[in-house]
Formats: sequence, structure tokens, C-alpha cells
Amino acid sequence: MDFQGCFPIWNKLTPAQQELVLNSLATRKVSKGNIVHNGNMECTGLLAVKYGQLRVYILSEEGREITICRLFDMDLCVLSAACIIQSLQFEIMIEAEKDTEVWIIPPMVYKKLMEESAPVANYTNELMATHFSDVMWLMEQIMWKSMDKRVAAFLLEECAIEGTNTLKLTHETIANHLGTHREVVTRMLRYFQSDGLVALSRGTVEITDSKKLEAMQ
Amino acid sequence: MDFQGCFPIWNKLTPAQQELVLNSLATRKVSKGNIVHNGNMECTGLLAVKYGQLRVYILSEEGREITICRLFDMDLCVLSAACIIQSLQFEIMIEAEKDTEVWIIPPMVYKKLMEESAPVANYTNELMATHFSDVMWLMEQIMWKSMDKRVAAFLLEECAIEGTNTLKLTHETIANHLGTHREVVTRMLRYFQSDGLVALSRGTVEITDSKKLEAMQ
Repeated sequence: MDFQGCFPIWNKLTPAQQELVLNSLATRKVSKGNIVHNGNMECTGLLAVKYGQLRVYILSEEGREITICRLFDMDLCVLSAACIIQSLQFEIMIEAEKDTEVWIIPPMVYKKLMEESAPVANYTNELMATHFSDVMWLMEQIMWKSMDKRVAAFLLEECAIEGTNTLKLTHETIANHLGTHREVVTRMLRYFQSDGLVALSRGTVEITDSKKLEAMQ
Repeated sequence: MDFQGCFPIWNKLTPAQQELVLNSLATRKVSKGNIVHNGNMECTGLLAVKYGQLRVYILSEEGREITICRLFDMDLCVLSAACIIQSLQFEIMIEAEKDTEVWIIPPMVYKKLMEESAPVANYTNELMATHFSDVMWLMEQIMWKSMDKRVAAFLLEECAIEGTNTLKLTHETIANHLGTHREVVTRMLRYFQSDGLVALSRGTVEITDSKKLEAMQ
């Protein structure tokens, strides 16, 4: 798979624009657990995931986290290029959840494309709207859903991503995804365990009754 | 003031595009308290506020509300045109907080402009990024700030908007802005009152010590 295949409007670029992209395109390998983009220090550019898994999250001054969205194979991200969209006034972090390789279009190259090409500008709009919709979904979860439902939904999502019912996850990691404290997650998981929904062991959460967990959401 | 003055990229439109906008531009007067845009039923188009004050909010299935942002004179809003940006997958409500007049560019006209013109598409990007940044700010408030600080910040914001320290506001209205329950607001305001920060009477919150309220934020 090459970059062209993951950039849906590749054919709407002029030959000169295609050449510009290919000549400036960088690839970067990031090992699991490492930071790909650090909000307040960088303007990385447009990211495209060749393979792997990334987590986009925000960080509070006190070091608390909440996951905004995840990026999988072939996903693109424009939030890592905030310097080229003046009104994008917030900072995000991106870390690799698995060993990942990304393509990067440098910010100034992408900016030039957006300025020249209505299709690129409109596609960027769609990308931003996708991130925005993820955040609005999350906001609705936070505002109107109780934490037990959010933990249940998160565990089921993880099972779908990993293709297994035995998740290698600490309570701290779950708390950082959901923007809560470890103690809250621990209490919830123990409650789930007493209800027969999960079985807990060190660093592992095994889903033992996914139907009941689904019904909770 | 005319529409041209409130659309920053007016001079980047071709004469034909300018004519198209002027021929399709609608104006609408909305009285205080009425709905301008109803998420799940309409695609209103691009909104520009001629004068007045609008509140953009989301609504839960149970009827709970939270304010996303406010629009004042000369502000533009693209969230009311979700039908022309495919990936904008959430629904918002807009109501008039004061008697308001808006200009509306119909969605299909604005879509045509975005497709033809990179400046329009990029400007739309900036508009969306502004709304997105408002929501991220709000998310950080919800996640990391306690409700007393959010109520304090809201009261100070209202004083700045209204130009007075005596606010005509019910506890229910404050709760709907902040996405919480009336009882929570009532408890908080009584606590503020006992601390000498506000004086409460029916339908009114008077700020009696704004310095102390500012220090709370």
C-alpha cells in the first residue's frame, strides 16, 4: 500500500501537486508507547497511518488524560497540523498504541495545497469534521452517560480492536482513555466482576459475559 | 452594515459568485426565545448574525442541554449547514437569546461556492476550527474544572455580555448552559450567597463581589 491509496483525492491533484507531495513526503516509524506528536511543541503536518494504531488525546495541566479518537491503518489526521489552520486553538497529543508507521506531509507543503486547490481544502474540511464529530460524540458520552456505561462501551470497543476477550490493560490505562481516576475504574471493574461480567487478574481484564456488557451500554 | 462587511473573504469571490450570494441571501428576524435552527429537522445554511445574540447548544434524548458557543453581531456559523459537510455527524440547536436578525446563505449555494473556490473552502475550515476550538475548551472545562469554578466563570461572562452585575437568569437557565441539573446550580448559588459573592432574588442573580468570583476561576 502506498500513500496515494490512502489519500482519497489523490486524482484531483495536478501532476505538479502530486510531484510536490511525493518529493516532500516523509515516513516515520514509532514504537509502541512513544509520542508521535506533542501538542505544545510541534507542528508535525498531515499524518496518514501506513500501519499500526495511534491514540489522540488531550492532557490537563495536572497530567490527566482523555482519549479523543484513535487512528488505524489508512486513517488521516489534520489535528497534528494546527499551525496551518489559524483558528485551531487547542493542543493534542498523539501516541503509538502499537508499533506504527506514518506518512507525514510537512505543514507548509499541505498549506500550499490547501490554498491552491479547492478539493484539498474541502477534503481537509471533511477530515476536520470527522475529528469534530468524534469529539461531539465523546462530549455527549461524558455529559449524559454514567461511568459504568462508558467503561462497558470501552471494554467492548477494545475487544473489537484486539480481536480477543482477554485484554491486557491496566486500570490506569482505562482511566486515561476515559478521563477519570484509576480508583473510579477499579471500583467499577470490581463491581462488574461481582456481577460476573469480567474476571480480573494483574494487568488483565477478561470479558466473561459480553452480552450482558452490551446490554449495559 | 451589510452582509459583505461581515464575510471576510467577500473580495476573494468572483463577480459572478458575489452576484449569486446577493441574489440568494435571505434575512430572517427571530424573537428572543425562539429556535433559529433545529438539529434533526433542518439544513438551514450558513448563518451570519446581523444583530442580536444566539446560543448554540446540544440536547440529550432526555431533554438536557449544554451550551456549545454563542454568536454575537457579525459572527458566522457553519454548524447550521451540516448537510453540505458530509462528515459533520452531529446535531445542534440554535436559539435566539435576544431579538436577532440573521443573514442566511442557502446550503446548496454555499456548497457550490466551497466547491468552486479554495478561499471559501479554507475560510469554512477556519470557521469550523473556531467552533471546534470552542468545544475543546468546553470539554476541558467539563473534564478538569469543578462546577463551582464553571458557575463563577459563567456568571462573569454573563456580566460582561450584559454590561451589568444584576443578571436576569433563572437557575434552570444556568443549568442548561452548563449541562447540569437545576438543583446543582441552586446549591452552588446558595453557597456563593453565604460567602457574600452574590445576592439572590426571584429570577435574578446579583454579583456583589466580582473580584472574589474572578479569583475562584
